Amino acid sequence: MSMLGFEAHHDGSPLYLQDGPVPLGGTTRVRVRTWAGGSSAGTDGTLDGGRPAAVERVWLRTVEDGEARFTEARRLELPHGADGWDWWEAELRAVNPLARYRFLLTETGGSVLWLNAAGVHSQDVPDAQDFRLSVAEAGPDWAAGAVMYQVFPDRFARSAAADARPAPDWAVPADWDAAVEYQGPDTALQFFGGDLDGVRERLDHLAGLGVEILYLTPFFPSASNHRYDAESFRRVDPLLGGDEALIRLVQACHERGIKVIGDLTTNHTGDTHEWFRTALADPGAAERSFYYFDTGGGYESWWGVPSLPKLDWASDGLRREFVEGPKSVVAHWLAEPFKLDGWRVDVGNMTGRLGAADWNREVGSLVRQTALEARKDALLVAESTNDAAPDFQGDAYHGSMSYASFTRPLWAWLTDGTAVNFFGSPLPCPPRIPASQFVAEYRDFAAAYPWNVRLHSLVAIDTHDTARAATAMLPGGQAVAAVLSFTLPGMPTVFAGDEFGLEGMNGEHSRTPMPWDEPERMVQDLRGLYSALGALRREAVLRTGSLRWLHADGGTLAFVRELAGTTALVVATRDEADIVFPAGLLPAGLFQAGLLPAGAPADTGAALAVGRIGLSASGDGGTRLRAAGPAAAVWLLG
Amino acid sequence: MSMLGFEAHHDGSPLYLQDGPVPLGGTTRVRVRTWAGGSSAGTDGTLDGGRPAAVERVWLRTVEDGEARFTEARRLELPHGADGWDWWEAELRAVNPLARYRFLLTETGGSVLWLNAAGVHSQDVPDAQDFRLSVAEAGPDWAAGAVMYQVFPDRFARSAAADARPAPDWAVPADWDAAVEYQGPDTALQFFGGDLDGVRERLDHLAGLGVEILYLTPFFPSASNHRYDAESFRRVDPLLGGDEALIRLVQACHERGIKVIGDLTTNHTGDTHEWFRTALADPGAAERSFYYFDTGGGYESWWGVPSLPKLDWASDGLRREFVEGPKSVVAHWLAEPFKLDGWRVDVGNMTGRLGAADWNREVGSLVRQTALEARKDALLVAESTNDAAPDFQGDAYHGSMSYASFTRPLWAWLTDGTAVNFFGSPLPCPPRIPASQFVAEYRDFAAAYPWNVRLHSLVAIDTHDTARAATAMLPGGQAVAAVLSFTLPGMPTVFAGDEFGLEGMNGEHSRTPMPWDEPERMVQDLRGLYSALGALRREAVLRTGSLRWLHADGGTLAFVRELAGTTALVVATRDEADIVFPAGLLPAGLFQAGLLPAGAPADTGAALAVGRIGLSASGDGGTRLRAAGPAAAVWLLG
Repeated sequence: MSMLGFEAHHDGSPLYLQDGPVPLGGTTRVRVRTWAGGSSAGTDGTLDGGRPAAVERVWLRTVEDGEARFTEARRLELPHGADGWDWWEAELRAVNPLARYRFLLTETGGSVLWLNAAGVHSQDVPDAQDFRLSVAEAGPDWAAGAVMYQVFPDRFARSAAADARPAPDWAVPADWDAAVEYQGPDTALQFFGGDLDGVRERLDHLAGLGVEILYLTPFFPSASNHRYDAESFRRVDPLLGGDEALIRLVQACHERGIKVIGDLTTNHTGDTHEWFRTALADPGAAERSFYYFDTGGGYESWWGVPSLPKLDWASDGLRREFVEGPKSVVAHWLAEPFKLDGWRVDVGNMTGRLGAADWNREVGSLVRQTALEARKDALLVAESTNDAAPDFQGDAYHGSMSYASFTRPLWAWLTDGTAVNFFGSPLPCPPRIPASQFVAEYRDFAAAYPWNVRLHSLVAIDTHDTARAATAMLPGGQAVAAVLSFTLPGMPTVFAGDEFGLEGMNGEHSRTPMPWDEPERMVQDLRGLYSALGALRREAVLRTGSLRWLHADGGTLAFVRELAGTTALVVATRDEADIVFPAGLLPAGLFQAGLLPAGAPADTGAALAVGRIGLSASGDGGTRLRAAGPAAAVWLLG
Repeated sequence: MSMLGFEAHHDGSPLYLQDGPVPLGGTTRVRVRTWAGGSSAGTDGTLDGGRPAAVERVWLRTVEDGEARFTEARRLELPHGADGWDWWEAELRAVNPLARYRFLLTETGGSVLWLNAAGVHSQDVPDAQDFRLSVAEAGPDWAAGAVMYQVFPDRFARSAAADARPAPDWAVPADWDAAVEYQGPDTALQFFGGDLDGVRERLDHLAGLGVEILYLTPFFPSASNHRYDAESFRRVDPLLGGDEALIRLVQACHERGIKVIGDLTTNHTGDTHEWFRTALADPGAAERSFYYFDTGGGYESWWGVPSLPKLDWASDGLRREFVEGPKSVVAHWLAEPFKLDGWRVDVGNMTGRLGAADWNREVGSLVRQTALEARKDALLVAESTNDAAPDFQGDAYHGSMSYASFTRPLWAWLTDGTAVNFFGSPLPCPPRIPASQFVAEYRDFAAAYPWNVRLHSLVAIDTHDTARAATAMLPGGQAVAAVLSFTLPGMPTVFAGDEFGLEGMNGEHSRTPMPWDEPERMVQDLRGLYSALGALRREAVLRTGSLRWLHADGGTLAFVRELAGTTALVVATRDEADIVFPAGLLPAGLFQAGLLPAGAPADTGAALAVGRIGLSASGDGGTRLRAAGPAAAVWLLG
């Protein structure tokens, strides 16, 4: 049993980690809050639970050199105590590179509770979800919680130069408003011809949305529209405008304060890659060792697809060429004249793993070392489609691009049963779950990340590899989803076209050319919403504040983000709702701040709202929530 | 939410893993059972739940080279189906050395369930508790599920030769019936003078209890009664009778079919160890590298205790001397003339771990390699006091000696609030939990072990490092605990003196000399119970059969162990009980076999029972359980 953060809470944010990260052997003060009483709110986020007993003593439990240790925490005299909370503090020493810790609480009456990164437990639980503090340096500050925008170059925009280029031999050319081929042999060959100058010409659009990081899927030459089958990692595809177009794009982005990251395929190349051609042509070539050739000339490839030969990271030659030193591929694009700001690494979860071999963490560490030497504030994130956290412990990539913690449970909460590809599972549509399970999955899959890794991980409602949220969710669901992606910890990530409500039932189907000049293809104009979310995201509390869940039942959830002096309250509904939060559950300052007038649902008093939603005072000191259907709102307390 | 195994079940036992373990790249057929209907039993082990919907489709989900894959399972036509179950089968390929898998189930009505090693979940859960199948060879068959008996040599028995030996200088000699010093400076020095010939002379006692493996805590010379501060790993302590006494003891054990394992301290030595003395005397000596000396001559030690200097496994010299090759310490004692049958490794969880260094898994692998070269059927288990499973994945030690999965939750279920040291926690006594939480903790902490590792892990109700069960538990609790330790998977482990109901409030206090000739010190004579349990443990179903939980509430739990054609039903109660298990919950054969006559509680019809407990037919086709307090019983269906 795990309970919401109403009874006790800690995370790696500044409110709770007083001295921030520390070097190996260093000490930081950790704080935990426990509910001191004075409310009738339930412990499980529902409204009928009894008030928790008061916490009497708190211990910090660490695991040091493999052995558990307990340190008693002291109760602090803090103004926070006035609003019903006790605060406790203990010293945490980073004995190992990854400090793991949790809290033991005893209550009046003798109950014993454990608090870990998944929540409060009334029984002992394994260490997998202990809080984690890595001594490795976190990702760059510019990226923590920043707004990311994902562009699939073939489908974003064509410059005039693109119009003049002939389509390549392998391509099946398509008009910009043609239907997207999303299954069958032409899927990877359908060529719309977007290019990097096209992206550059649309930077006003990105700036208007508040985009801070542009994430380009691969720009390397290849024989497909997705370019994950690179022919070289040393050239920008001439079809995209070549190296000069990338230099122009990055410079234009930087002039607007937008960072740019590229997309690197460390798991495989295309079978037309210069390395692979050399390896095929000459079994004695050094490049032969870059791949897994068998004695018969066969080779390993991604998912058994022969056009994507898998890289063998046991090869020193591959390491030198790809990830080691200032001349490597990794460093090449971060340096002058390209000046990329970092990398997203493709198929991060499979890279270096084959049978008994597992070079995965080592490759990640090498990529990190080389990239940070080339550019000390580079951002490094890697794709890991499933349960990613165990591979992201702060010492390799700064963050993950994963679906397990947010995207998958979000779809499952907001599904209306429409058939979409559900992340490769055999299910015909997302399995329907209540908000309580959305929160449980979110917490379970996020728990094993160090906090800093969470702030540098992508939070996407969809991507170029998934169905579109507009298709996967009930009507009005995408807007609710977008509010959550912009208010939870991490980097809110918009896949180009989300702002037009574009649709798609699988990843390929979602790669629709942007409907710039075709209003009839704009399914829903959400530019205003995304602009408002982008502006709201500038609030520090949403970038680095703690996350504490307050409520989750079938159709409704609520949480706060908190920094010293600032609180953001977020409420989201899937269904029509009319419920009363008990006194003490929502931040006490809301009424004092006059933000919550009793009124019609449309009168929210909120900083941002979608759908029809409102809070008002209930007769018994509580707060009444009403919503007319899918809706979400954010209240800020300065 | 996790449910008991009533709705669906799989584990690594022969019923479910049709072809047993496989080599890397090999394929084995995995089976899963799902409830097909026909009962009103609850899904959560309580009696008021609704019948689960029928499972319609089943998929095996594997993680291969880091990526999830789904394979649909086929429904089998099996006689099992007749008793309400459907069986499904799919092929599992061991793509990686540790195959991880789970099952996805869909039910009529569209519900989606996940089945992993912790149970059935109505939402997606992280991979940490996926089923695991290691391609590494499992521990020896002779040890799987065998009965182990732990002897602390200073406290077991004195031979006539021992009486003639003077106490060493460091010792505080004590008469055999003296009170045990369990705190203060004499704790490690109090010397009762038991020896190995004393053990040999009491082998009738072990044989009478059905002991199959004798586990000796260290027999190396040292300056303490516990001998974990070895002076040498090359000699048996002369106070124990020297090398010849060990040879005699092992030979006598082997003649009775009893295996013997020793206790090796890979984390540290004593500060009187010959290596440490050499290192201290000569900073240029090779032995200097065996320890963590700083430039000032200080050194790292276990838990900061200077008499226990910590070993540095970065040292090649240490590796050669201790764990590599046929002349190493590890191999020395397994070979002629000693012929030990294996090792228990002390402080396994801290070995090789210090700050940024972590040689832990490597040391375990080296110990394994060397031991198995010396003796291919050696047993290797290691101490890991807390959440052990992540370190025990089948490739290093065969099994663990841990408290997290069984001992700790067992004490918490059976506590009566008596103050005992609760595994180093600051709690004054075990936290009281209901049986449902005992089962949840048991499953949570066991889930990450490969099945074969569970069969080779110690299952102890107490040890030389803990309080005694008789002290930690309510009156009658130890017997219930013993039944559980002998009927759950793993090696039931008896700490010498448990059979006399000996008491102790911490580990040192529990090291009471055996009351051979002092009946007044035998608190409770449980020899009959342990003998009966030892005999029962010869049943193959209890050694290697699957484990399926049927029921767990506050004071009562029930489970079955199953092999083809054999079922053992185990019911245990903490409190007075009078409840009705619904029709279909207990194995169908029980009534047909005539094992369960309706009758008085004392008339159990069981193969073994402690306390007053009985099952009888209830009016509605169910089974009524009555118990008068702490009780347990085992029923066998051949």
